Amino acid sequence: MYDLYIANKNYSSWSLRPWLVLRELGIPFNEHMVPFDEEPRWVELRKISPSGKVPCLDDNGTKIWESSAIVEYLAERHPNVWPSDPAARDWARCAAAEMHAGFGNLRSRCTMNCGVRARLHEVPPELTKDITRLAGLWNDGLSRFGGPFLAGKAFTAVDAFFGPVAYRIQTYGLTLDDTAAAYAARLLALPSMQSWYADALRETARPPSQESALEKMATVFEDLRAKAG
Amino acid sequence: MYDLYIANKNYSSWSLRPWLVLRELGIPFNEHMVPFDEEPRWVELRKISPSGKVPCLDDNGTKIWESSAIVEYLAERHPNVWPSDPAARDWARCAAAEMHAGFGNLRSRCTMNCGVRARLHEVPPELTKDITRLAGLWNDGLSRFGGPFLAGKAFTAVDAFFGPVAYRIQTYGLTLDDTAAAYAARLLALPSMQSWYADALRETARPPSQESALEKMATVFEDLRAKAG
Ligand SMILES: N[C@@H](CCC(=O)N[C@@H](CS)C(=O)NCC(=O)O)C(=O)O
Ligand SMILES: N[C@@H](CCC(=O)N[C@@H](CS)C(=O)NCC(=O)O)C(=O)O
Repeated sequence: MYDLYIANKNYSSWSLRPWLVLRELGIPFNEHMVPFDEEPRWVELRKISPSGKVPCLDDNGTKIWESSAIVEYLAERHPNVWPSDPAARDWARCAAAEMHAGFGNLRSRCTMNCGVRARLHEVPPELTKDITRLAGLWNDGLSRFGGPFLAGKAFTAVDAFFGPVAYRIQTYGLTLDDTAAAYAARLLALPSMQSWYADALRETARPPSQESALEKMATVFEDLRAKAG
Repeated sequence: MYDLYIANKNYSSWSLRPWLVLRELGIPFNEHMVPFDEEPRWVELRKISPSGKVPCLDDNGTKIWESSAIVEYLAERHPNVWPSDPAARDWARCAAAEMHAGFGNLRSRCTMNCGVRARLHEVPPELTKDITRLAGLWNDGLSRFGGPFLAGKAFTAVDAFFGPVAYRIQTYGLTLDDTAAAYAARLLALPSMQSWYADALRETARPPSQESALEKMATVFEDLRAKAG
């Protein structure tokens, strides 16, 4: 059985990706939480994950770290992680890789914080550029492969890479064209996304590192999360 | 025949990765340069690459963008892109993915600029942390799989992901332990790396966007590049 190490569901966008792949494809795994801002920190975390970061998949002692490497590891062992159609698979890998290393402004200005609703202090041109590219990429996949998922009829790993973006759109009320907005809504409605979201709302930890990143960029006007204690 | 679109060799760390894979594995391709700070810019570049970024591989009209997606595309079509040993392959994918999305301080503070030698204004703890992790990762691969390459006897894609780092080490004189330093020297000595380096030295363009990123962080004390005109 796989062991997947993740961080707090309210905040950990990287953790969400392999978790979604495992859940949506029905691959059994044990889930372990390594919370932000609590011991173990870097040195301790390195005993769990070679990079000192989560997500990390432990397959009976074999450690696979980095969300995109976990996905390729799963793809070598389970069907339907990537689309079986070669053209859809090639496209899906490009789009997932672009999310893995790109969209820096979206990631740093709209940090994932599932349980709040917030208004950005400003929307600079770099952020608009990221959102425009995001919508363009989604429209491209949906029209090329016919939807309702990015690379065709079925949920695949490329959709998992954009799961965190769907929460960001919801948290910050980002504006997209109808096709892209409808796709984000479909992601939010997935049973796995609903279940992650419900768990995120139940968390009571408020790691300063995560909350301060949000406060720097936005004003919270609604907090749907459980109260501590 | 493949067409690979890249940016200036002196600066474009992302372009170097798939280029090295193709060259070291002897896969034929045509090379096309889309220089920094010149037309075509973003909108024009999007006609070449869907993300508006290079590298982009064009396989008879099929566009594959993002260095790591190009590598997986090649791995589905050519042997030896990844190690054939499963344990080495799993490790190589993790290490390459970590480079793809990580080492942010190394990337932003030590921008690639092959042809100069420079001294950093400062080495903050975040940069030291990246360098420590880099050396740890290299030592791990080299000891696990026996070297001389990161995942064993042969050059594979994971080595290509660290090609740009070898130039950064040379440019900024970064200090590493003996094992890691010897590996960086082996990368620099590869025929493909020597050929890229020679081409980089011949370039006379000095894009302000690239040069200013260097000047912000470091003082150049030697410039080995050709003089313009
Ligand atoms: N590129 C990595 C990113 C992993 C990452 O940054 N994880 C964060 C949590 S979301 C972490 O573990 N941070 C711990 C730390 O930096 O101390 C991936 O795709 O897995
Ligand atoms: N994550 C991408 C990064 C590509 C990238 O940032 N490319 C730069 C050149 S090194 C670029 O094309 N920049 C053009 C621009 O941003 O306008 C990859 O792995 O290919």
